[in-house]
Amino acid sequence: MNQTMIERLQRFFSPSHIAVVGASTRNHWFFNMAGNARRSGFAGRFYPVNPKAAEVCGIPAFASIADLPAGGIDFAAVIVKSTQVLSALEGLAGKGIRNVLLVSSGFSETGEEGKKLQDGIASFCRGQGIVLLGPNCLGFMNMAGNASVFAGGAVEGDLVPGTIGIIGQSGAASEIIATKLLKKGLGISLYVTTGNEALLTAEDCLEHMIEDGTTRVVAGFMEGFRDVPRFRRLALTAAGKKIPIILIKVGRSAKGVQAAASHTGALAGNEQIMDALLKQYGIIRVETIEELVETAGLFSRCPLPGGGNLAMCTLSGGLAGLYADLCQTLSIDLPDFSGSTAEALRSVLPEFAQPANPLDVTGSGFSNGMDRIVKILMDDENTDLIAMLSFPPAGENDTWAFGHNESYMRALQTARKPIVPVTFREVSDYARRYYREHGLYYIEHVQDGLRAIAHLIGYARFLRARSPR
Amino acid sequence: MNQTMIERLQRFFSPSHIAVVGASTRNHWFFNMAGNARRSGFAGRFYPVNPKAAEVCGIPAFASIADLPAGGIDFAAVIVKSTQVLSALEGLAGKGIRNVLLVSSGFSETGEEGKKLQDGIASFCRGQGIVLLGPNCLGFMNMAGNASVFAGGAVEGDLVPGTIGIIGQSGAASEIIATKLLKKGLGISLYVTTGNEALLTAEDCLEHMIEDGTTRVVAGFMEGFRDVPRFRRLALTAAGKKIPIILIKVGRSAKGVQAAASHTGALAGNEQIMDALLKQYGIIRVETIEELVETAGLFSRCPLPGGGNLAMCTLSGGLAGLYADLCQTLSIDLPDFSGSTAEALRSVLPEFAQPANPLDVTGSGFSNGMDRIVKILMDDENTDLIAMLSFPPAGENDTWAFGHNESYMRALQTARKPIVPVTFREVSDYARRYYREHGLYYIEHVQDGLRAIAHLIGYARFLRARSPR
Repeated sequence: MNQTMIERLQRFFSPSHIAVVGASTRNHWFFNMAGNARRSGFAGRFYPVNPKAAEVCGIPAFASIADLPAGGIDFAAVIVKSTQVLSALEGLAGKGIRNVLLVSSGFSETGEEGKKLQDGIASFCRGQGIVLLGPNCLGFMNMAGNASVFAGGAVEGDLVPGTIGIIGQSGAASEIIATKLLKKGLGISLYVTTGNEALLTAEDCLEHMIEDGTTRVVAGFMEGFRDVPRFRRLALTAAGKKIPIILIKVGRSAKGVQAAASHTGALAGNEQIMDALLKQYGIIRVETIEELVETAGLFSRCPLPGGGNLAMCTLSGGLAGLYADLCQTLSIDLPDFSGSTAEALRSVLPEFAQPANPLDVTGSGFSNGMDRIVKILMDDENTDLIAMLSFPPAGENDTWAFGHNESYMRALQTARKPIVPVTFREVSDYARRYYREHGLYYIEHVQDGLRAIAHLIGYARFLRARSPR
Repeated sequence: MNQTMIERLQRFFSPSHIAVVGASTRNHWFFNMAGNARRSGFAGRFYPVNPKAAEVCGIPAFASIADLPAGGIDFAAVIVKSTQVLSALEGLAGKGIRNVLLVSSGFSETGEEGKKLQDGIASFCRGQGIVLLGPNCLGFMNMAGNASVFAGGAVEGDLVPGTIGIIGQSGAASEIIATKLLKKGLGISLYVTTGNEALLTAEDCLEHMIEDGTTRVVAGFMEGFRDVPRFRRLALTAAGKKIPIILIKVGRSAKGVQAAASHTGALAGNEQIMDALLKQYGIIRVETIEELVETAGLFSRCPLPGGGNLAMCTLSGGLAGLYADLCQTLSIDLPDFSGSTAEALRSVLPEFAQPANPLDVTGSGFSNGMDRIVKILMDDENTDLIAMLSFPPAGENDTWAFGHNESYMRALQTARKPIVPVTFREVSDYARRYYREHGLYYIEHVQDGLRAIAHLIGYARFLRARSPR
C-alpha cells in the first residue's frame, strides 16, 4: 500500500458527514447506524436520503442524492435495492462523494447474476476513484477515532477505544467477537466487516491496521483470502512491527467450506497448506470465538515472555492438579522451581505446603504472604511468566480482595515478567474496570486462557527465531 | 448400602440443630457456616461452643460441649485443633450426637503423624456409630433440603434447589463448580465436599445421591477412588436409573498426580485403565470445570436424543462454517436434511438461502418464519436433536427477543426431539430466569456446549447399547 492509499483509508475510516441513501424506518439499518455513531461519540451529521419521508428516525431527510448539500459530506452509506446501486453511486460521484459503504445484499452471494452486478459496480468505483466497502456488509466502527458507520445491531457494551483491530468476513460472527471483547473491558481500535469484498478486501483492512499505528493486535474472522502472496507480505510486515495476527479461519470441515462458500477465496479447502502457511508467518490460528477473544485480550495487555516456562499459583491442591493436566494437554511447560526458589517458598508457605509448580499455597498461605510469594516467583530463574490466582473485587468496598491483589500491584511496578491473574470467582463489572485500570488481562475460562498463554509463548518464540539476539 | 445406611445419610444431610465446636470470630469458618445456612433457608439453630466467648457472630455460645442442652442437637461441626478433635468427639458422643462434620486440617494431608491421628478418629467413630465427613473439609449444602453446614465462603449466587448433585474431593474446585452452576440458574440437590475421607467417602456420597431420589445428574471433581469395585457397582446402578455421572478426574499428567498426591487413591497414575474403566461404565469424563458445568446443566434440562444426528440452525454463513468445523472436531454428525425437509425449508427460507446443515437462515429468514423452520426440523427424519440460535431477552420489555423465542416455546409443547438454544448475545440475569422457567438449557460458550451435546449423544448411545429395544 503506498502512502496515498494509507492516507485514503485513514480518511475513509474517519468520516465527518455521512449521507445514507435508502435510509428508512422499514428496516433497522439506519436506526442502528445512527445509534452506533452516537455511542462511538461521532460528532458529525447524518443526511438520510429518502424520496418519501421528511425525516427518518428524527433526522431531516433529503428527497434525492441531487438534493444533498454541496460540499461537507465525505461519506455515503448505500442501502437501496441491488439493481439501484449503480445509479446511486453515479449520483454520489457527481456530488464528489468517494467513500462508500454498500450495505445492500443481492450480489455475488446470490449467484451469477448478482456477481455480474457486483463486478459492474467494482469497475465503476475503480474508474471513479471510489473506495467501497461491501456489498452485503455491516460497515465499520472506528472506536479509536470516534466514528462509526455500522448497520449491525448486535454489538453490546461500552465502545471502549483501544488497540485491538477486528476484521470480519462474517458480520454476525464478528459482532459476537466485538461484543465479547467490549464486555471484558478490552479496547478496540477499528472494527471492520468486509462483506463480499467487491473492492476493499480483508487484506486491505489488515494492511491499514498494520500501517495506521493505532492497532497493536489484529483479530480476524476469515472465510478465505483473496490474495495469498500479499497476505504473506503483510504477515511479514506485521511480524517486523510485533503486531500479532490472530485468526479464525473457517473451513476445516467439508461442511464448513460449504457453509462459507459464498465468500470463499482461493485457498479454502486445503487445510494442511493453510496451517503450514499460517504457522510459517507467525499467524496464530484459533478454533473458537472465545479463544480468539482471550488471545487478543491477553496480547493487548500482556508483554511477551522471554521464554516458555510458566509458574502457576493457586490455593487448592485440586485446582493445582487440574491446571497441571491442562498445561500438559496444551504443551505448556511447568518447570520445577530452582533450589533457591523452593527454599525461599518454604520459608513463606505454611509448614505442610510443597513448593511445587503449580503451586498450592493453601488457604492459609493465601491469606498471608502472597506479596512475598509473587516476589519469589519473579526472582525464580526457571520462570518466564506467572499465572496467579486472583480474587476479583466485587465492588469498591471489597477491601479483602484489594488486600490480596495488592501483591500483584506492587510487583507490577517493577515487573520483569508478565503476570496473568486467574480469577477465582465470578468477575463483576467493577472488577473488569479494576483490571483494566491496572493494565492487567485476566483469565476467566481457564482452558481458553491457558490456550491464549500458549499462543503468547509461541508468538514470542516465533519472534525470537526471526531475529536471534 | 443397606436401607439403614441410606436413612442414616438422609438424616446426616438434613440436620435440625447444629453444635459448632470451636466456633470463633478469629477465622471465617463459623461466620461462613451461619451465612450459608441462612442462604439455604435453614430453619434450625446453631449452638456455638467457645470457652472464651458469650456469643459468636451474634449467636449465644456455650463454654463447653458438656454445657450444651441435652437432646435436640443432632449434628456437630468441629473446628478445633487436630490434637483436640478426639476429645471433642468423645464429648459429642456423650451427648448422643453422632453426625459430625470435621472441618479441621492437620491430618493425613500433613504426613505420617497426621495419618495416625486420623486413623484413631476413624476407628473411634466406627466404634461409636458416628458418621463423620472430613477432616480437612468444607462440609455440605443440601439445597433441595434447605440445610447446609458449609464452611466455605466462595459459593456465590442464589442457592437454587434442583437435581444436580456435586461431589468435590477438592473444596475450592467444587466451590467454583457450584458457583458456575448457580450463576447459570441451574439447580443443585446436594453439594458435598469429602476432604480426607476418614470415614465417609466420595463413593458413599455417590451412592446416597443415586439412592436418594432427588439427584438426577451427578457432577464430581475427583482426585482418586477409594474402592474401585464398589465404584463400578455404583456406576451400573446409576446407569440402570439413567442417572449420568460426569467427572473431572485429576491426574492425566505427572504434575497433576503430584499436586493431588495428598488425596490420591489406588488408581491414580494409570490413565489408560482409568479412561477404559470410565468409558465401559458410561461415566462421562470431562477436562475442565466449564465443560463439567455445561454438561451437567445440559443433562439436567434436556431429554436424551434418540440418535446422534444434530441439526444446527443459525443466521450467518460465518457462524454456520465455524459450527461445522467444531462439530467435525468433536465427532458430532451434521447429516444432510432429507429431500422433503430440504424442499420444505426452501419454501420458507429467502430465495438465496441454502437448506444445508448447519442451516444459515440469513438475517431476513430469521426475522420471519422461524416457527415454521423449527417445525420442519422437528419433522425431519434425519434429525435427532436441534441446536437453535436464540436471542436471550435483555429484560421483560424485550418483545423483539420474545417474538423470536416463541418459535421454540410453541414447538416445546409438542417436542419430540431435544432443542438446545445457542445464545447469540450476552445472557442477562433476566434471560437466565427466562430459560429456566421454560425448562431450557442454553449454550453460551459454543465449544463447551457442543462438547456437552457430544456427551449427551454418547450417553444416550451407551444406554441404548445396554438395553437394546
